[in-house]
Amino acid sequence: MTDTTTTDSASPAPSRRALIGWGGAGLALGAAAAGGAVAIARPHDDTESAQAATGGAVAFHGAHQAGIATAVQDRLHFAAFDVKTTERAALVQMLKDWTEAARRMTAGRAVGEGAFGGLAEAPPDDTGEALGLKPSRLTLTIGFGPSFFEKFGLADKRPDALVDLPHFPGDNLEKSRSGGDLCVQACADDPQVAVHAIRNLARIGFGKVAVRWSQLGFGKTSSTTPDAQTPRNLFGFKDGTSNIAGTETDRLKKFVWADDGDGSDWMAGGSYLVARRIRMNIETWDRTSLQEQEDVFGRDKGEGAPAGKAKEHDKPFLKAMKPTAHVRLAHPEANDGITILRRGYSFTDGTDGLGRLDAGLFFLAYQRDPRKGFIPLQRRLAASDALNEYIQHVGSAVFAIPPGVRDQNDWWGRTLLTEEA
Amino acid sequence: MTDTTTTDSASPAPSRRALIGWGGAGLALGAAAAGGAVAIARPHDDTESAQAATGGAVAFHGAHQAGIATAVQDRLHFAAFDVKTTERAALVQMLKDWTEAARRMTAGRAVGEGAFGGLAEAPPDDTGEALGLKPSRLTLTIGFGPSFFEKFGLADKRPDALVDLPHFPGDNLEKSRSGGDLCVQACADDPQVAVHAIRNLARIGFGKVAVRWSQLGFGKTSSTTPDAQTPRNLFGFKDGTSNIAGTETDRLKKFVWADDGDGSDWMAGGSYLVARRIRMNIETWDRTSLQEQEDVFGRDKGEGAPAGKAKEHDKPFLKAMKPTAHVRLAHPEANDGITILRRGYSFTDGTDGLGRLDAGLFFLAYQRDPRKGFIPLQRRLAASDALNEYIQHVGSAVFAIPPGVRDQNDWWGRTLLTEEA
Repeated sequence: MTDTTTTDSASPAPSRRALIGWGGAGLALGAAAAGGAVAIARPHDDTESAQAATGGAVAFHGAHQAGIATAVQDRLHFAAFDVKTTERAALVQMLKDWTEAARRMTAGRAVGEGAFGGLAEAPPDDTGEALGLKPSRLTLTIGFGPSFFEKFGLADKRPDALVDLPHFPGDNLEKSRSGGDLCVQACADDPQVAVHAIRNLARIGFGKVAVRWSQLGFGKTSSTTPDAQTPRNLFGFKDGTSNIAGTETDRLKKFVWADDGDGSDWMAGGSYLVARRIRMNIETWDRTSLQEQEDVFGRDKGEGAPAGKAKEHDKPFLKAMKPTAHVRLAHPEANDGITILRRGYSFTDGTDGLGRLDAGLFFLAYQRDPRKGFIPLQRRLAASDALNEYIQHVGSAVFAIPPGVRDQNDWWGRTLLTEEA
Repeated sequence: MTDTTTTDSASPAPSRRALIGWGGAGLALGAAAAGGAVAIARPHDDTESAQAATGGAVAFHGAHQAGIATAVQDRLHFAAFDVKTTERAALVQMLKDWTEAARRMTAGRAVGEGAFGGLAEAPPDDTGEALGLKPSRLTLTIGFGPSFFEKFGLADKRPDALVDLPHFPGDNLEKSRSGGDLCVQACADDPQVAVHAIRNLARIGFGKVAVRWSQLGFGKTSSTTPDAQTPRNLFGFKDGTSNIAGTETDRLKKFVWADDGDGSDWMAGGSYLVARRIRMNIETWDRTSLQEQEDVFGRDKGEGAPAGKAKEHDKPFLKAMKPTAHVRLAHPEANDGITILRRGYSFTDGTDGLGRLDAGLFFLAYQRDPRKGFIPLQRRLAASDALNEYIQHVGSAVFAIPPGVRDQNDWWGRTLLTEEA
C-alpha cells in the first residue's frame, strides 16, 4: 500500500496566478489544468528539498489523505470546527464543496471557476490572498471528532479506536483550545497558502460550521524524510529522531494506517490524530544548565546524539540515560514497540500577560489506534518524564482521519456519511 | 546618504552550524568570521530574490539601523518590552549585551562564544533552536517609547517628534497590546530565526526588562523593492503600491530619516515607528461583493490596478474612485505629499471566541516625523475611509528609532544614553 497517488496537475510548479488566469487567455490554461486527467505520478513522499525547490503540488487523491506520510512542510494552520447545522444533507453538501475547494487549492488553483470574472455583484469565490503564490506543497487533511458522531446519530459508526482521551497527570486543558467536531490540518511551505486554505473552508462552511479554535505553527519540529536532520524544538533540542518516514511502508502499515480488520470498515486507509497544545516554559528552561537540559532529554544539545553516542542517528543506549530522561521513556524499545508518526510544529502566540512568551509545541501524532499509541505513551511520560517540569499540556483533541479521496467524484467523509455505501 | 553599509561576515551564506562550529575545527572558522574586518560591501537594499536565494546576512553596522530600508523579509516577530530596572547602568549594560547578541545573530552566529563548550553547569549562552539555520536576512531594529524617557529622567532628550498618538475615531485599543518602553523588530525569511532572536534578547534582559506584548507576522504585505509586485493583504488586495523603495535615497532622506536639523541631535540618522495592530473582520469582508470590495479600495482585485487603469503601477486617477476609497484618501497626491514607509505583516492569532479568526494586519510605518506622517494620514482615514467598516485598530505604539550602530564598539542607544557624548 505505497503512496503512489497521482496528481491532477500536469505542471510541476504552476503559479496560482497563471492557473487562475484572470478573465482572459489564462482561463483556458486554468480549465485545462482543472479538467486534465492524471498526468504525472508524484508520490506524497518526495524528498522535502526537491518539492520545496519546485514549490510544487502534492497529490490530493489517493488511498490515504495527504498530510500524514507526506514530507513535513514548513508551516501549519490547524483549525477545529463546531458543526452548527443539524441537517445531514446540508453537512454532506458542505463536505462535497470543501472537497472540491481542497482539490483546487492543493493544486495551486483558486476556489471556484474564473473567480473574479463578471460577477461583480457577488462575493468572490476565492478570498484572493494566495493569488500569485505557488501551491507550496499544500496538503489539507480532514478529521472527525468524537462529538461529531453524537451530533449526527452516527454512534454506531464511531470507531472503537476513537476513544475520548483520559485525563493525564499535569494536564491543564483549556476548553477553548480543545475538542471539535471536525478538524482540518493545512500544511504548506508558505504560511499564507495554509492560512488562505483554512479561511476559505471556513468561508464556504459559513452557517454550517464555525471555527472553534485554530493554531498557527511557524516551524516544523519533525521530519518524515529518511535520514534528514531532525528540526529543533523551542528547547533547542532535536526530538523524534526515530520518527516514521513517509517511505517506510511497512511501519506506516503497522503503526499508522487503519485497516479493514480494525473494526470500522469506513476507516480503512485512514488514521487517528491526537493534537496537543503543549506550552513550554521557555524562560525557566533558558535558566537551566546545559547539563540538566541534556539529562532531561537524554541527548546532547549540539549534535542531538543519544547520551554517550556521537551522532544523532546512532542507536541509543537507554541505560546510559537517567531513568526520567525523555528519550529513555519515549523510545519504542522501552514501550513494547509503541510507535507514532509525529508532525509537530513550534508556535509563539504573543505573551501570557506575565512577561513570558506564550510559546511551545503543537504536537500532532498519527497512529493506527490511540489506545496502542499516544495513550499508553503519554501515561508513561506524564508519570515520570523529567521534561514535565518545563511543559504543560493546555489543549487536546482527537480525531478519526478518514481514508483518502480517491478521484474527482469522491468527497471527504463519503465512506462515513453515505447510507449503505 | 545611501545605504552602503558593510557586513562583518566574509561568507555570503554562512550556516549557523558552520560558524558556531561545535567544539572542534569549526571554532576557527567561527572566530575568523567574528573577528574578521569588513569584507564585502552589501547594501541593505539588495533585491529580495537575490538575498532570499543565498539565505544571506544583512549588514548590522551602518548609519541607519537595518530593518527599515532593507528589502522586506518574509516573516516578523515584534516585541515591546517594559523596563523593570531603575538603574541606568544596568540598563546600559543590557543594551550593550543586546547589541553584541544582535551583531552575532544577524550574522548567523549563536549568542556567546563557543556556546555549549565546556560549561555544562551553566545555562547555554544561546537557546539553540536556530542552530544549523541560515542567517535568513535577519534584521533587529530597536526603538524607545515615550514612557522610556520618563522612567530614566530623560524628558529633555525626548524628541518633539515622539508625540503620544491622539485617539482616532474608531480606535478600540487594548492596553495589553499597546505601548512599551522599548521595542525590537525582528524580520527574517525564516520565522524560527526571528523568534529565536527575540527570545534570546528577552533571556539576556531577564530581570531588567520583561516582554509587554509581542506579535508574529506570517506574511509581508509591503515591499521596499522597486518594481516588485506588492504582496496581498488578508482582504486579498495589494495595498501600498507607491511604498518607498530601499533604493530611493531622496525619498528616504525626505520622509524617513531624521536629521540634525530636526531638533534632537541624538536621533540623526534614526526614524520614528508607528505600530498598529489592525484586526480585519475577514468573515464580513468575505461576504461582500467584489464590486463593493473594489470600490472600498479604489483598485481592481485581480491586478491591483487603480480604478479605471490596467496595471498595478499605472498612475492612479483619484477622481475615478469613490470619495471614500482607501487609495484616494491615502494617496500622497491627496495628502499634501504625506509619505510613509510601510513594512506591515499579516497575522492570524487563533480565534476570538466567536467563531471568527483573529486575523489582520500588523501595520508598521517608518517616518521622519509622525506629526507629518502617520497622524495626519490616519486622521483623514479614520474620518472617511470606507475600509473602516471592515477593520478595527486594537493595538498601538510609537517609538523613536535611534540611528544605526556604527561599528564593533558602538551600541544600541549610545547617542541617547551616553552622558555628554
